[in-house]
Amino acid sequence: MNNARPRVLVIHGPNLNLLGRRETNVYGTMTLEDIDALLLKKAIALGLDLEIVQTNHEGEMVEAIQKTLSGYAGIVINPAAFSHYSIAVRDAVAAVPVPVIEVHLSNIYSREEFRHHSVVAPVTKGQISGLGPLGYLFALEAVAAIGGGGKQ
Amino acid sequence: MNNARPRVLVIHGPNLNLLGRRETNVYGTMTLEDIDALLLKKAIALGLDLEIVQTNHEGEMVEAIQKTLSGYAGIVINPAAFSHYSIAVRDAVAAVPVPVIEVHLSNIYSREEFRHHSVVAPVTKGQISGLGPLGYLFALEAVAAIGGGGKQ
Amino acid sequence: MNNARPRVLVIHGPNLNLLGRRETNVYGTMTLEDIDALLLKKAIALGLDLEIVQTNHEGEMVEAIQKTLSGYAGIVINPAAFSHYSIAVRDAVAAVPVPVIEVHLSNIYSREEFRHHSVVAPVTKGQISGLGPLGYLFALEAVAAIGGGGKQ
Amino acid sequence: MNNARPRVLVIHGPNLNLLGRRETNVYGTMTLEDIDALLLKKAIALGLDLEIVQTNHEGEMVEAIQKTLSGYAGIVINPAAFSHYSIAVRDAVAAVPVPVIEVHLSNIYSREEFRHHSVVAPVTKGQISGLGPLGYLFALEAVAAIGGGGKQ
Amino acid sequence: MNNARPRVLVIHGPNLNLLGRRETNVYGTMTLEDIDALLLKKAIALGLDLEIVQTNHEGEMVEAIQKTLSGYAGIVINPAAFSHYSIAVRDAVAAVPVPVIEVHLSNIYSREEFRHHSVVAPVTKGQISGLGPLGYLFALEAVAAIGGGGKQ
Amino acid sequence: MNNARPRVLVIHGPNLNLLGRRETNVYGTMTLEDIDALLLKKAIALGLDLEIVQTNHEGEMVEAIQKTLSGYAGIVINPAAFSHYSIAVRDAVAAVPVPVIEVHLSNIYSREEFRHHSVVAPVTKGQISGLGPLGYLFALEAVAAIGGGGKQ
Amino acid sequence: MNNARPRVLVIHGPNLNLLGRRETNVYGTMTLEDIDALLLKKAIALGLDLEIVQTNHEGEMVEAIQKTLSGYAGIVINPAAFSHYSIAVRDAVAAVPVPVIEVHLSNIYSREEFRHHSVVAPVTKGQISGLGPLGYLFALEAVAAIGGGGKQ
Amino acid sequence: MNNARPRVLVIHGPNLNLLGRRETNVYGTMTLEDIDALLLKKAIALGLDLEIVQTNHEGEMVEAIQKTLSGYAGIVINPAAFSHYSIAVRDAVAAVPVPVIEVHLSNIYSREEFRHHSVVAPVTKGQISGLGPLGYLFALEAVAAIGGGGKQ
Amino acid sequence: MNNARPRVLVIHGPNLNLLGRRETNVYGTMTLEDIDALLLKKAIALGLDLEIVQTNHEGEMVEAIQKTLSGYAGIVINPAAFSHYSIAVRDAVAAVPVPVIEVHLSNIYSREEFRHHSVVAPVTKGQISGLGPLGYLFALEAVAAIGGGGKQ
Amino acid sequence: MNNARPRVLVIHGPNLNLLGRRETNVYGTMTLEDIDALLLKKAIALGLDLEIVQTNHEGEMVEAIQKTLSGYAGIVINPAAFSHYSIAVRDAVAAVPVPVIEVHLSNIYSREEFRHHSVVAPVTKGQISGLGPLGYLFALEAVAAIGGGGKQ
Amino acid sequence: MNNARPRVLVIHGPNLNLLGRRETNVYGTMTLEDIDALLLKKAIALGLDLEIVQTNHEGEMVEAIQKTLSGYAGIVINPAAFSHYSIAVRDAVAAVPVPVIEVHLSNIYSREEFRHHSVVAPVTKGQISGLGPLGYLFALEAVAAIGGGGKQ
Amino acid sequence: MNNARPRVLVIHGPNLNLLGRRETNVYGTMTLEDIDALLLKKAIALGLDLEIVQTNHEGEMVEAIQKTLSGYAGIVINPAAFSHYSIAVRDAVAAVPVPVIEVHLSNIYSREEFRHHSVVAPVTKGQISGLGPLGYLFALEAVAAIGGGGKQ
Repeated sequence: MNNARPRVLVIHGPNLNLLGRRETNVYGTMTLEDIDALLLKKAIALGLDLEIVQTNHEGEMVEAIQKTLSGYAGIVINPAAFSHYSIAVRDAVAAVPVPVIEVHLSNIYSREEFRHHSVVAPVTKGQISGLGPLGYLFALEAVAAIGGGGKQ
Repeated sequence: MNNARPRVLVIHGPNLNLLGRRETNVYGTMTLEDIDALLLKKAIALGLDLEIVQTNHEGEMVEAIQKTLSGYAGIVINPAAFSHYSIAVRDAVAAVPVPVIEVHLSNIYSREEFRHHSVVAPVTKGQISGLGPLGYLFALEAVAAIGGGGKQ
Repeated sequence: MNNARPRVLVIHGPNLNLLGRRETNVYGTMTLEDIDALLLKKAIALGLDLEIVQTNHEGEMVEAIQKTLSGYAGIVINPAAFSHYSIAVRDAVAAVPVPVIEVHLSNIYSREEFRHHSVVAPVTKGQISGLGPLGYLFALEAVAAIGGGGKQ
Repeated sequence: MNNARPRVLVIHGPNLNLLGRRETNVYGTMTLEDIDALLLKKAIALGLDLEIVQTNHEGEMVEAIQKTLSGYAGIVINPAAFSHYSIAVRDAVAAVPVPVIEVHLSNIYSREEFRHHSVVAPVTKGQISGLGPLGYLFALEAVAAIGGGGKQ
Repeated sequence: MNNARPRVLVIHGPNLNLLGRRETNVYGTMTLEDIDALLLKKAIALGLDLEIVQTNHEGEMVEAIQKTLSGYAGIVINPAAFSHYSIAVRDAVAAVPVPVIEVHLSNIYSREEFRHHSVVAPVTKGQISGLGPLGYLFALEAVAAIGGGGKQ
Repeated sequence: MNNARPRVLVIHGPNLNLLGRRETNVYGTMTLEDIDALLLKKAIALGLDLEIVQTNHEGEMVEAIQKTLSGYAGIVINPAAFSHYSIAVRDAVAAVPVPVIEVHLSNIYSREEFRHHSVVAPVTKGQISGLGPLGYLFALEAVAAIGGGGKQ
Repeated sequence: MNNARPRVLVIHGPNLNLLGRRETNVYGTMTLEDIDALLLKKAIALGLDLEIVQTNHEGEMVEAIQKTLSGYAGIVINPAAFSHYSIAVRDAVAAVPVPVIEVHLSNIYSREEFRHHSVVAPVTKGQISGLGPLGYLFALEAVAAIGGGGKQ
Repeated sequence: MNNARPRVLVIHGPNLNLLGRRETNVYGTMTLEDIDALLLKKAIALGLDLEIVQTNHEGEMVEAIQKTLSGYAGIVINPAAFSHYSIAVRDAVAAVPVPVIEVHLSNIYSREEFRHHSVVAPVTKGQISGLGPLGYLFALEAVAAIGGGGKQ
Repeated sequence: MNNARPRVLVIHGPNLNLLGRRETNVYGTMTLEDIDALLLKKAIALGLDLEIVQTNHEGEMVEAIQKTLSGYAGIVINPAAFSHYSIAVRDAVAAVPVPVIEVHLSNIYSREEFRHHSVVAPVTKGQISGLGPLGYLFALEAVAAIGGGGKQ
Repeated sequence: MNNARPRVLVIHGPNLNLLGRRETNVYGTMTLEDIDALLLKKAIALGLDLEIVQTNHEGEMVEAIQKTLSGYAGIVINPAAFSHYSIAVRDAVAAVPVPVIEVHLSNIYSREEFRHHSVVAPVTKGQISGLGPLGYLFALEAVAAIGGGGKQ
Repeated sequence: MNNARPRVLVIHGPNLNLLGRRETNVYGTMTLEDIDALLLKKAIALGLDLEIVQTNHEGEMVEAIQKTLSGYAGIVINPAAFSHYSIAVRDAVAAVPVPVIEVHLSNIYSREEFRHHSVVAPVTKGQISGLGPLGYLFALEAVAAIGGGGKQ
Repeated sequence: MNNARPRVLVIHGPNLNLLGRRETNVYGTMTLEDIDALLLKKAIALGLDLEIVQTNHEGEMVEAIQKTLSGYAGIVINPAAFSHYSIAVRDAVAAVPVPVIEVHLSNIYSREEFRHHSVVAPVTKGQISGLGPLGYLFALEAVAAIGGGGKQ
């Protein structure tokens, strides 16, 4: 890990692989590949090493988060549907020593009632909602800014 | 896809693989294989191509649903336990362009309070509950009837 | 009653007499007469004797249901607005010895919150929601399938 | 209907026939006949044709409302007790193409908790509460003002 | 009213006409006729004039109650299903000047949650629940005891 | 116990010793001694042996109820304040093999919200509320009528 | 105050100064100035002296209401957003001796859930909702009609 | 407004003037002046004209927001305590045609329950919570990015 | 501040300026001036310097509280209506380093449900309710007793 | 009782006998004996006769309160845990003719949710919370001040 | 206390004295004496001194718990009905310095809703539910294992 | 299965693989390997055959449970986060014929509100919470004790 650039993990949750192909009125027309390209470009600018995961499986998300127990500078995560009920994801986030920033493409507070509550949010560093792909970039920047400053 | 008969996806949720072997007072004595046989026979009668999946994994159910983004005429789904909390499954159902019909073998409204609410139902075409294996057959017929008429 | 074909009672609840003339975006353009014609045709195919009632009066619905204490093979009922508060209708359904199947033309689970709960559903055999007129036909078929097998 | 003055339907709900004879501290000493006389006088002044119904039967109220599917300019309705639970009345109000104005003699918001919520109000044009018989006259005037302008 | 024996109105609510023929495990095997016979015998012993009504129609129950505005000594009422939602019945009970006693054959507090709440109870003189036909007889006796003492 | 008249236990709950001396607008002017005298007279008429307890202590009420595990024909109980929270009293009532009838002098359903719910009621035979001292007498009569017929 | 025409205070709440310039689909295209002109004209017709206030400040609304402690015949108030949480406004309304009539341009019962509840309504004389500018005029007329009759 | 750089309004809510001097464990040690300096520097970099307001008065916040009806490119707002109950602020936000981004210095989702709900959030473009002063800078950047693209 | 007597701030909330002139059955006949006179007399006896503010404006109350960041020994506050919803006032109270004691003239727990909850109470030192003007005097005495002992 | 000094009853509820020996961070280091000594000294100053009871038994607390039916000038009570559920204690407080003042050493509104609600408070004269032993002394003083003025 | 074996207090709550004689389908056929014998035998094996109390009185349970302020190694408690509402018992448990382990014979989570919540559990070391008499033995063993390790 | 020792399945849920490495203040410093070693040692002592699974995947947990349909004597399960929402896990537990005992290392009732409710508990044999690794050993012992006695 030494000599290396800080490594940040980006996690995209369930159904985000459909981005740009479903409900474009809600989620926009950018695909996940487009967003990842923006993130990679930004990472280079920030001197970060990026690792990107998309998964529709709660268990895989839990284990991706667990990987940051050592060797990572932070997590940018869009837990998507899992935000609203996956206490397993919450527990994983709470367990790791790095700052975790939650991102939502759409404004979850102007959608269905059940999307207003994230069980993950209370154990993250912060949350960005409604700013589209920009939200991911800001989250990455925030992780870079917090740097080696530990979880908080 | 051309020249082919409309393809319909049937999805059986968690623990349905135990059908006929557990709580027969609630779910009846038919096994899942028995139901699948009835479905295949009905599909032939309706001129449909059938694909049947049983899974105990939420992520697999999500990805099965996602497959219908193209090339399918509809989905018949018994989300079983996932009905009551899996917003990931709900989001997948909302994302695909085909009619989705939700089936429950037992009458979920005469069981425990928590089974009265399906988070998936609001984004389906409709729901059939309490009619046993017949419910599956009606759902298949409904998909056939709606035909190529799009999601709604 | 002997020598006779099984008699099934179809009950349409309040405001269904306006079908095809109100809120066609929710309920479709078919009139109640159209649906009744489909039902009668289906009944002949199934060898059933059909009796059809439409009422805007809760008391009449209760008494129609009570008629099936003897001489009927089942009930297909769309309690419409009464679904959501008429415990009198519920009690009548619970009192009769025949299978009762609840039908809703629209998907009540994608409408206003108060329509998500049916006080009648827990004492029916099952419920079909969101499949339009097809729902009635399936319900009739289900009653025929359950046949003389008693309430359940 | 042509050449005729616009016809407005006034509907008084359950127990309003007792007006002036029960709980005069809540409802005042005017009888329903007194109110109807005021309404008829006002109708003449407004050039309206008035039809007045009082009923204690939900089904009759539903059917009175249904009559306005054609040939009426609007409804002035005091659903009384039905305001708080009759979804059948609500559905009828939602189904007709004329403006419907809800009137309550007493201020329902300063009475028992259960009277604070009207299931009918969301589908009316508006509501007047607490102004006594004046409320009826204002409602009539509002219907006249909206005139042939359709439901809204 | 002079020289006459006090007249008491007994009102049986919806589905009570099925008594002894439905759900006998809950309601017992006595028919409504049996109960009425007991009541008439008791009335004679108490020197009361009895009038008995059974109705499945809310509007009829409202109007039966309204009849006691004059000439009656009290009401014994089993509102059955209406107990739990009919504010129209409640308003009628509140409007009449005689003591009203609510009777339930079964113990409504050991049944479904929704039966634990009576919207009528707060405006009655009192309630007897779970004592079977005896409850009616006690209620009659209570009305006789309160005699001409007005509503309370 | 043989040759003896059936013994019935009457239990008065907390603060009932103040009867006739506090809040007479709610509870009336009769003292507890007056009510006990009426009960004893009625017991003689019914051929019952009466044992009367008043206690302000939950533990004593529990143990009084426990005494009826053998040798008693039933309990008439006014749990007063304990009705609304004492699960210990409820458990005792549920544990004994005799019919238990709950009495409330005032109509608990027209008082504060928290008095509308009795945690004891679901495990009693029945409940009489709002009929004043008459309620006790009816309860005694009901116990006599149920006689040796066991708990239900 | 003698010899003078009765003075009525009209209070417009927060954001009503934007009327006709924001969300015209909800609030219509009339400006507040247009409404005030209608009110002034109506006041002349009714022989009333009018004082009109618009404020976005809760404290100013409270103090405007307090002014009517003497010398005013009534208040017409559209508390707008304050309706739903300002107990300070409620307390001021409850404190003054004149009739207060609450007006809402739109039908607050067909909008977001939180707009269905007015904390001010229980202490007003009455409420008019959904009738647009007409609602103000009716309110003014109602104040004139109640005249010097005190608060109620 | 032409030729000018886009003007953005930054609004700090109640008690933020105490920043750096109160509860530094929650809000950090930076003062509001420090944050404003960062914002001004960032604005220059982004080519934006900045206007900054701090207010402890709801009415002033409402009127500050109203100023953006014309001539502004967007709002960055930290409504602080008002977030949780000021529907007046919400209505103002909903009324203006520019994108509004809500910022919270601390993670409101890991604090008291009542801070988890913002009544303003549903009508904003998006929300940033928990990222400290960085959140303001990101919000400014987001407004710049959305540019003249209207409210959404 | 040295050599000076400890300074205590007394804050009276909205509508308290009407004291003695409104709802005297709830708040008594003493005016605010009477109470202030009692407070000043008591302050002299306690060797305290008193500063008294009455405001109907939430923002002014917030800023009054903020003044105690330095130079004050404590606050006696009757937030009146603001108690029940003003999180801005709560945040100000939480921010200042002096003991804050909440006073209510009437017993807020025997009034409307919404008055039972104070959002300010959890961050105060303590609360006195229902003791009329005496409550203010006790609060002043408590502040004096806690003296320079800091917030708690 | 004549010629005697007014007698006041002080009641300490369950677990207060442990004061100063348990959870001193919440309740302080003073023992109950210390507080009683302060109370006795204050009583002498106020010319009151003091009677002090500590009990862990609800029934004993009820009976202590009942003693004040005659011969007492008031009660100072810290119901401790009983505050939150003992309706028996509440009923006793409501039954006695003397002013009752509720005291809590700690600020119950800054502790667990269930401690925020006192079932006793609505029937007391007032409540003092969070002021430690001072709260008892103020309560005693308040009783003295109200003197023979009856309950309120 | 020195030289002595660690002393453990076992507390059985209300109605447990009826064990084996009531509702044996829920609680089994073992009597409390049987369980105590098992406990005593186990205590010998573990080198513990045992003290066993059964009480139906909340106050006695509170005082039994208080005894462990010194000289005890721990408490094994089955609060039975008190589990669900006795905050007095909870406060006593929280006050003592020894580990307290809560035992329930039946699985309280598969019984009535109100039994799912124990107000005592949050302040215990742990809870064992549904394992019958074994639960007591495990609890005893756990206390022995924690030994002199203080409360936690 | 004959001649073999009874086989017991131990299932550790999500994030338990991090044990001893995360939040040691909540979960202690023992690793999962340490606990497994203790379990294996205990199993030998009890004559049991042990199979241990740790999974972060709900579907895997469901399928592990399903394996016990035959050939197993019982399950010891710590569903961890899944306890609180996985109805799929609950259904699997309900479906298998062996006793299932739920274990939680920490006292879930003294943690966040959402951890107080286990959707799995109602269908288990029992639950042990808060006793750390000891809880697992007790659960194993309980399974051994219940032996071949079927599910209950």
